[in-house]
Amino acid sequence: MAPAYKLTYFDGRGLAETSRFLMKYGGIDFEDCRIKREEWPQWKPKFPFGQVPVLEHKGKVVGQSIAIARYLAKQVKLVGNDDWENLEIDAIVDTINDLRMKHAAWFYEPDEAKKKVIIENIKKDTLPYYLPRLEEIVKKNKGFLAVGRLTWADFYWATVSQVFDVVNGIDTLANYPELKAARERVNSLPAIKKWIEVRPKTDF
Amino acid sequence: MAPAYKLTYFDGRGLAETSRFLMKYGGIDFEDCRIKREEWPQWKPKFPFGQVPVLEHKGKVVGQSIAIARYLAKQVKLVGNDDWENLEIDAIVDTINDLRMKHAAWFYEPDEAKKKVIIENIKKDTLPYYLPRLEEIVKKNKGFLAVGRLTWADFYWATVSQVFDVVNGIDTLANYPELKAARERVNSLPAIKKWIEVRPKTDF
Repeated sequence: MAPAYKLTYFDGRGLAETSRFLMKYGGIDFEDCRIKREEWPQWKPKFPFGQVPVLEHKGKVVGQSIAIARYLAKQVKLVGNDDWENLEIDAIVDTINDLRMKHAAWFYEPDEAKKKVIIENIKKDTLPYYLPRLEEIVKKNKGFLAVGRLTWADFYWATVSQVFDVVNGIDTLANYPELKAARERVNSLPAIKKWIEVRPKTDF
Repeated sequence: MAPAYKLTYFDGRGLAETSRFLMKYGGIDFEDCRIKREEWPQWKPKFPFGQVPVLEHKGKVVGQSIAIARYLAKQVKLVGNDDWENLEIDAIVDTINDLRMKHAAWFYEPDEAKKKVIIENIKKDTLPYYLPRLEEIVKKNKGFLAVGRLTWADFYWATVSQVFDVVNGIDTLANYPELKAARERVNSLPAIKKWIEVRPKTDF
């Protein structure tokens, strides 16, 4: 029988890996569809607003990576116990996304000199602003990003923060043991560990 | 008795107005705290990641405008009936936010010449890409942004799309009757109509 879910993205981790982690964690079988960059122009018009990732389920298609991850988190029981807990989880996810967006600016900038300036500003201003505050939050949450226990916010952090290392070319979390441990805890979950071993090797 | 909720933002509609609309709609009493621009530097360090809006409730404080709006939408019953409906609502909200971010670039750009270029690109590329697709979605959803009935996606659209008119200096939705009607439907709800009449008059 075909899997109930199909996740379509580029052949990379990027904005799809949080959702892949969540499905692997929860044992949800899914088709991991990866579009080659050179085939993207012919695929792009087929997706809502010309974007990936998209999730397909029971004949329906929907986009937006964080929305998809939140939905999957509900399916695998990695959400809050009440509305306020979910607000706290959503807020930290959106904060991590703000930090991610600063790195995305590097990705979309074609000019090499400007790319360099973006990285310099991230290292000088962005990371020193965000990381100590996030570190403090994890400390208060017993090693987790929110609500004092494992939620999809930790999965979002684990998958998104590894991009920071790639973009900045450094061990971004070297001085932030709590943030590093929070990522490591997700990566060490048996189902995730196994997925990391077998997943396609890509730059991003 | 003091209201159970306090929403703190600048003295403007901006990123707080969706949440104000939701609370007005649902009859939730709240303190509408507005920080003066000149007092912002002394307030900024007090908020999570130095940002507003923040919502305070039972001694807890949380940021991120969309996360707050989603939480309030649950309290006033403007969410989906199941997880997939909520995914569809979240996805369209994030798509509208993508469109909003293009306008936010104008807001944060200090250089007047560059500001002009941003507006030109929005008019030439961004709006013609997003608006026909959004119009089609509203058509399919019986006049609503998602799931064929009134949800907080409509509230998000109503409050965010008015910013497009202000930034672009045109009636952005002139050729998009469905999108305009969707906004108008929210603005015409009795509680919202009343709020629009009495709320502080601000540029944004």
